[in-house]
Amino acid sequence: MSATTAVAPLRIGVIGVGRIGRMHAELIAHQVPGAALGAVYDAHEPAARDVASELRVPAAANVEELLHSDLDAVAICSSSDTHVELMIAAAEAGKAVFCEKPVSLELAELDRALGAIESAGVPFQIGFNRRFDPAHASVRDAVVSGTVGDPHLVRISSRDPAPPPPEYVRSSGGLFLDMMIHDFDMARFVTGHEVVEVFARGAVRVEPWFAQAGDIDTALVMLVHSDGCLTAIDNSRRAAYGYDQRVEVFGSEGMAVSENPPAHTGVVLTAAGERRPPHPHFFLERYLPSYVREWQGFVEAVKPGSAPPVSTADARAPLVIGLAALRSLREGRAVRVEEVQAP
Amino acid sequence: MSATTAVAPLRIGVIGVGRIGRMHAELIAHQVPGAALGAVYDAHEPAARDVASELRVPAAANVEELLHSDLDAVAICSSSDTHVELMIAAAEAGKAVFCEKPVSLELAELDRALGAIESAGVPFQIGFNRRFDPAHASVRDAVVSGTVGDPHLVRISSRDPAPPPPEYVRSSGGLFLDMMIHDFDMARFVTGHEVVEVFARGAVRVEPWFAQAGDIDTALVMLVHSDGCLTAIDNSRRAAYGYDQRVEVFGSEGMAVSENPPAHTGVVLTAAGERRPPHPHFFLERYLPSYVREWQGFVEAVKPGSAPPVSTADARAPLVIGLAALRSLREGRAVRVEEVQAP
Amino acid sequence: MSATTAVAPLRIGVIGVGRIGRMHAELIAHQVPGAALGAVYDAHEPAARDVASELRVPAAANVEELLHSDLDAVAICSSSDTHVELMIAAAEAGKAVFCEKPVSLELAELDRALGAIESAGVPFQIGFNRRFDPAHASVRDAVVSGTVGDPHLVRISSRDPAPPPPEYVRSSGGLFLDMMIHDFDMARFVTGHEVVEVFARGAVRVEPWFAQAGDIDTALVMLVHSDGCLTAIDNSRRAAYGYDQRVEVFGSEGMAVSENPPAHTGVVLTAAGERRPPHPHFFLERYLPSYVREWQGFVEAVKPGSAPPVSTADARAPLVIGLAALRSLREGRAVRVEEVQAP
Amino acid sequence: MSATTAVAPLRIGVIGVGRIGRMHAELIAHQVPGAALGAVYDAHEPAARDVASELRVPAAANVEELLHSDLDAVAICSSSDTHVELMIAAAEAGKAVFCEKPVSLELAELDRALGAIESAGVPFQIGFNRRFDPAHASVRDAVVSGTVGDPHLVRISSRDPAPPPPEYVRSSGGLFLDMMIHDFDMARFVTGHEVVEVFARGAVRVEPWFAQAGDIDTALVMLVHSDGCLTAIDNSRRAAYGYDQRVEVFGSEGMAVSENPPAHTGVVLTAAGERRPPHPHFFLERYLPSYVREWQGFVEAVKPGSAPPVSTADARAPLVIGLAALRSLREGRAVRVEEVQAP
Repeated sequence: MSATTAVAPLRIGVIGVGRIGRMHAELIAHQVPGAALGAVYDAHEPAARDVASELRVPAAANVEELLHSDLDAVAICSSSDTHVELMIAAAEAGKAVFCEKPVSLELAELDRALGAIESAGVPFQIGFNRRFDPAHASVRDAVVSGTVGDPHLVRISSRDPAPPPPEYVRSSGGLFLDMMIHDFDMARFVTGHEVVEVFARGAVRVEPWFAQAGDIDTALVMLVHSDGCLTAIDNSRRAAYGYDQRVEVFGSEGMAVSENPPAHTGVVLTAAGERRPPHPHFFLERYLPSYVREWQGFVEAVKPGSAPPVSTADARAPLVIGLAALRSLREGRAVRVEEVQAP
Repeated sequence: MSATTAVAPLRIGVIGVGRIGRMHAELIAHQVPGAALGAVYDAHEPAARDVASELRVPAAANVEELLHSDLDAVAICSSSDTHVELMIAAAEAGKAVFCEKPVSLELAELDRALGAIESAGVPFQIGFNRRFDPAHASVRDAVVSGTVGDPHLVRISSRDPAPPPPEYVRSSGGLFLDMMIHDFDMARFVTGHEVVEVFARGAVRVEPWFAQAGDIDTALVMLVHSDGCLTAIDNSRRAAYGYDQRVEVFGSEGMAVSENPPAHTGVVLTAAGERRPPHPHFFLERYLPSYVREWQGFVEAVKPGSAPPVSTADARAPLVIGLAALRSLREGRAVRVEEVQAP
Repeated sequence: MSATTAVAPLRIGVIGVGRIGRMHAELIAHQVPGAALGAVYDAHEPAARDVASELRVPAAANVEELLHSDLDAVAICSSSDTHVELMIAAAEAGKAVFCEKPVSLELAELDRALGAIESAGVPFQIGFNRRFDPAHASVRDAVVSGTVGDPHLVRISSRDPAPPPPEYVRSSGGLFLDMMIHDFDMARFVTGHEVVEVFARGAVRVEPWFAQAGDIDTALVMLVHSDGCLTAIDNSRRAAYGYDQRVEVFGSEGMAVSENPPAHTGVVLTAAGERRPPHPHFFLERYLPSYVREWQGFVEAVKPGSAPPVSTADARAPLVIGLAALRSLREGRAVRVEEVQAP
Repeated sequence: MSATTAVAPLRIGVIGVGRIGRMHAELIAHQVPGAALGAVYDAHEPAARDVASELRVPAAANVEELLHSDLDAVAICSSSDTHVELMIAAAEAGKAVFCEKPVSLELAELDRALGAIESAGVPFQIGFNRRFDPAHASVRDAVVSGTVGDPHLVRISSRDPAPPPPEYVRSSGGLFLDMMIHDFDMARFVTGHEVVEVFARGAVRVEPWFAQAGDIDTALVMLVHSDGCLTAIDNSRRAAYGYDQRVEVFGSEGMAVSENPPAHTGVVLTAAGERRPPHPHFFLERYLPSYVREWQGFVEAVKPGSAPPVSTADARAPLVIGLAALRSLREGRAVRVEEVQAP
């Protein structure tokens, strides 16, 4: 009997089944061994019904119903402004919690949500899926194993194929909190060292309406880590050649790099030279394996005695760095991370 | 009403749900827009029940039941020696037919099966999935578009990560009909020209038991095409570094190549040089996108007025080339394909 | 007769035949069409005699003798602290002048030397050889042609295989003026835009004695260009995997990259993965073609009606940026280039 | 005094200073430590004078004068039909001999020349320069070291950027003896195993005048080695994308590949995909480092107690394979190498 219990799948409910939530629901339903989709909920009822019908699970009438069912865990994939309250409710209901980033754009709110998680003692994982990308993970592995030695210099580039719509941008928290936050996480992840200083410069180069939204679309940020490692991160909201996501750690013994995967490996050579296809243009295409592995990590993490691969500290630190970057951009100076952390 | 009809999914039944059949069933169920899994059948009843339960479709009690249900199409994925009779039965039942390769190891039997397909006028597609691999397909595209000019020289390498079990090999038809048959198909596919002559040399280098099975595990075959193009194909049953599948067409205006995709794009550089990961070791991992696209092709092909992307001629020619290769190997001479074709 | 005159080679004398000067002498003697080595001089007489004998040219007894011979041009390759006086003397003697970088570590001195060049009206070229590297030049070409559109983000990495000796470092002017000065030049070269602001961070990570020499061995610098383009430059005095020199311009229409050339193109694949050789470990090996092309550029440039490909402004701007980087490092703040330029 | 003698350079005379001979003369004069150019000779006197003047060595009035001077070695770079007599004369004069390939297109003549070398006991090296290419050499090294295990399959492609002039082709011995002979050498070099059987197919695809010259311009040849290794070699007289020279050994433990070096490492990415430059178009550009290393090998080889890296057997075997290929092409069957070797 207990043996059977041991292998019962983790039953997960998904809250919010827009683009990213629907993808999570499908992955949980079909591609994650040890996980099962238990139910879905969406404030927009027809969306919930549609996904529920396709994936043959119940659509909860409201969040409470979902939280008080027999699910083991919930995935919070609704709009960002609902994350804090949902995390608190899920934690109080004793569910393991997966939450898409960002938890919140405000530090106090984030701390309130993380506090609820810690009080309840439930497992928690934030959706920094890139940590699970095999190539990015191989960079971290090369650091952890000592192959590249002490990290001295890091280069991270994240460039999207096309900007999001203006209405998204306006409530996104801006480039640092919406887009570069993944790279702040990556900088900590691959080096294993906290960030202590941020210097940021940004510009509007892609679309003038970013300025009207009080945002930038192009940025270069320099981080100083606690061990003296120096990191450069650049972001652009539009790369003509497709999704560009590279990470590189240079250390005392060598270098580890995560290059862009090609859309396919066809090559054509003519008198005009060598031609390869453009990169994939869609983040789901680029990062699908990372999402699958992210859920595999979650399934492992909720087992007794395990710890989630992405901790509450990992949910907090990138926001703090992002806030420091914002201050640096506004004040034109290097900002110590502790300036932002201080209450 | 008619609008609804137009978008009704193609209902497909899968016969045989071992490794490859189960994969097809899962893809049809979850990843092929416009297709739906209707039922499954397997001579080994528990296998059928298991897949049926997981994918929430009925398990047919026998082939007749499956063929006389309201399915639009069947996918024949059972053991090779059942393919001919199943194709004939499915054709007579008026179903569109997808059949894993090989239809048969005997030309007369294959002709009987293809004859039934043609008499019934049902759409038919054979499982040469590699045609749907994006990189291999890009090689053909570069020929069809004229970018590489007239094809002069072709190089194809197919090397498996590990040999199949001896019992599989014994009934496989041997390296030429079981493994290199994909490459014979590829040679015709990428050049657009029939093969007229075959010269083959083979050896037992990987495992001595291949000799005991009357087979070889390593081979190099030269093809002459009708337009004078020369093709070299090599096969090995074991590549230490993983699955190796490359296609290259050299022509009057250039060259198109399909290189091996890396397992991931992580790179490590140290004083010892540059290191990249080994290739994927499993054909499903390597070719998953091709299987998805293969079914997309099938769904398109059964629409009225369409023709399957892989025709009955495409099912026949590689077997003929393979039989010529076998004769060349035995007789130590170049064999004209027409020697084998003659009744 | 005039036809013969037209093709008379440019006769060049080399002052200073240490490592770099000897290389220039050999290239001029053997590998630069239209150039001829006329004489050499070195303060260390045996060195001059040795090179003169090998290359079969006279060794001048002193600089005056060399400058008042019938040479067309001189290459100043002696120790850095002699460059200013030699440039002035050569200019006054009416010779075309090639000078290894740096002209001087002090802006006033550099201005004095460039003033002499301009007063004399002689052609002048500074030894920023990397501009002539075919891959780096292809990056600039892709910007000039509009292929990458407006430059938005630039990444430059320069990492040496091993640090120079401490005694060299002590008189080198430090990492910014000795090493990164090439990258400051590159940033202007590939973008076509002046630098207006510098933010620098540096560290001692490679060898503690850099600190004792008042220098750093690892640095990351951010530049803001006049058009808003943002550039990140990183330098390390030791890359375990060999000479690492990359340049990348990301713009509104695409990206141009200069990757590291491999030592050779041999690849080995085993169960452990793919292995390629380490990069070349010596800058002469890496950049030899650039030196040859540098001299070809010089030979073209001194022809009537031509202008040297690297102007006096190009000699001055990188020093100014380097001085701004030094000030930024010391003061922990972003420094406007005009703060340094101001008299 | 003896110390000085020990380091006296090897004095080499060059016979024939057309394109390839002039290159050898320049390399010996300037780029090969331990070697010195002693004199040159050419049947076309102005050519000899021109090179002699540029490289500041005497031009011999005739071969006898050259052979009876105090040279240590001669490089025979004159037209192919003079090689046998010059080798015999040089051997009888006691000089170490370097000879460009081919020694002769006739086996009996080649044996006569090699016999003279062996009788005289002088060091001899034939100009199979590709053995000295660093990437090709790395493939052999990976075999010799056991890294790739026993060789099972070899792929070699050699494709020239453009065909030679018709008058050259007519006296060249044809594609197998003029062009593919390098690849026959390479097949033996990288595997370490003799060739026992040849099957050849060829075609005229590049220029119709190859047929009028009784030659082919495109060929695919299969070799069987003594250990059962199978090799495919393809050649084309014109590759639109530049010089294409690849070697690949697949063995029981892995694979070693020599890929084409790029003209430079610049890459451009746009919405149209990734673009890299075409390959170098000239064999001297592609293989210059191999020629330098070839001479370094010669200088080492003539030292007492050393053996030339390319032996007389290495000069003979590729011709025999080439003659077998010719017979295979004419007779349409696999030809045993011993059929050709037999007296």
